[in-house]
Amino acid sequence: MKIYDVEGFPNPLRVRVALAEKGALESVSFIAVDVLGGEHRSAAFLAKNPAGAVPVLELDDGTCIAECSAIIEYIDHQFDGPSLLGEEARQRAIIHMLQRRAEFMVLDAVGDYFHHATAGLGPALEVDQHKQWGEKQKHTALNGMSYFDRLLGQHEYVAGETFSCADITLYAGLAFAEYSDIEIPVKHRHLLSWRERIAKRPSLNLA
Amino acid sequence: MKIYDVEGFPNPLRVRVALAEKGALESVSFIAVDVLGGEHRSAAFLAKNPAGAVPVLELDDGTCIAECSAIIEYIDHQFDGPSLLGEEARQRAIIHMLQRRAEFMVLDAVGDYFHHATAGLGPALEVDQHKQWGEKQKHTALNGMSYFDRLLGQHEYVAGETFSCADITLYAGLAFAEYSDIEIPVKHRHLLSWRERIAKRPSLNLA
Repeated sequence: MKIYDVEGFPNPLRVRVALAEKGALESVSFIAVDVLGGEHRSAAFLAKNPAGAVPVLELDDGTCIAECSAIIEYIDHQFDGPSLLGEEARQRAIIHMLQRRAEFMVLDAVGDYFHHATAGLGPALEVDQHKQWGEKQKHTALNGMSYFDRLLGQHEYVAGETFSCADITLYAGLAFAEYSDIEIPVKHRHLLSWRERIAKRPSLNLA
Repeated sequence: MKIYDVEGFPNPLRVRVALAEKGALESVSFIAVDVLGGEHRSAAFLAKNPAGAVPVLELDDGTCIAECSAIIEYIDHQFDGPSLLGEEARQRAIIHMLQRRAEFMVLDAVGDYFHHATAGLGPALEVDQHKQWGEKQKHTALNGMSYFDRLLGQHEYVAGETFSCADITLYAGLAFAEYSDIEIPVKHRHLLSWRERIAKRPSLNLA
């Protein structure tokens, strides 16, 4: 199988970490998409993902799977190793909910700030900016950090005592925030110490 | 178990239809939340869902699950009957992806239009409107309808030949669009005939 992505971008990071956690990185060929050159808006790429975003997983039968949470669901079912999505109904629902919250409260909110209220990917690509909305979403992201700081004062990981895809999404959200110059307030010591622990995982320290 | 919601609202509809499809409506007590009176922003409700949105599923042990896709994941695992999320990795990933697309391309885009560019829930609740963003999201929803019309020209259901949670989300998105006076263009005949078929399902025709 193939993954079309850009190394170092926040959503591609989620899928690469998930693959590394499952020990499955070598089952995949990575194909670089020239996002800065606008390749993700070409007809050929939109046929793979009409939303025009990376990453996209292409299965050997040609099926294209977009949306990180869907790609990670595939990876989690397909490969052995501890589940990133949980084992039974209650745990799966909690992980699913917190993964969604890490998306809309942090990662996607930072993305809106980056694309709408900063230079983003540059004038050739950011052709429909809504600056006021982007600024509002910066506050959404800061409120999200505050929420996850409280949560991480109660548990070792985002969804309880086990590492899950919710941790991966929040970690990518904080990486994107840092790249976009949104600082994590130093008072969020639970969030900061969690980030330090996650950053040491082998899946985030590959050569 | 309990569900806190508002009958007739688009996201609550998703969970009620999922329960009906699994024959599990009678396993749940529904508790009405006075959203028009602002109850969803009270401290008591925010303790159940910090995002301040309905529906919320409360399990018998007090655990609260928010986010429709997480609630439906719980329902699907917990109750018998055909799976709304798919059986194996490839099918689950496709359903997951299309459910997310039905959210961000239609349902959530309509929600942004409704809350930001119309009177929404009224001046007491819509205190931070971004009208230009709301108008943009109306176009996102119309583009989403066009995408799903093409898709439904190829398959009987959103994610292929089987009814799934992706159909539920798209159906709720179109209901919300209708309520918000966003008309489905008549040229989208695949989308319109799919909607007509879905509307006849027993899960949408309970007393």
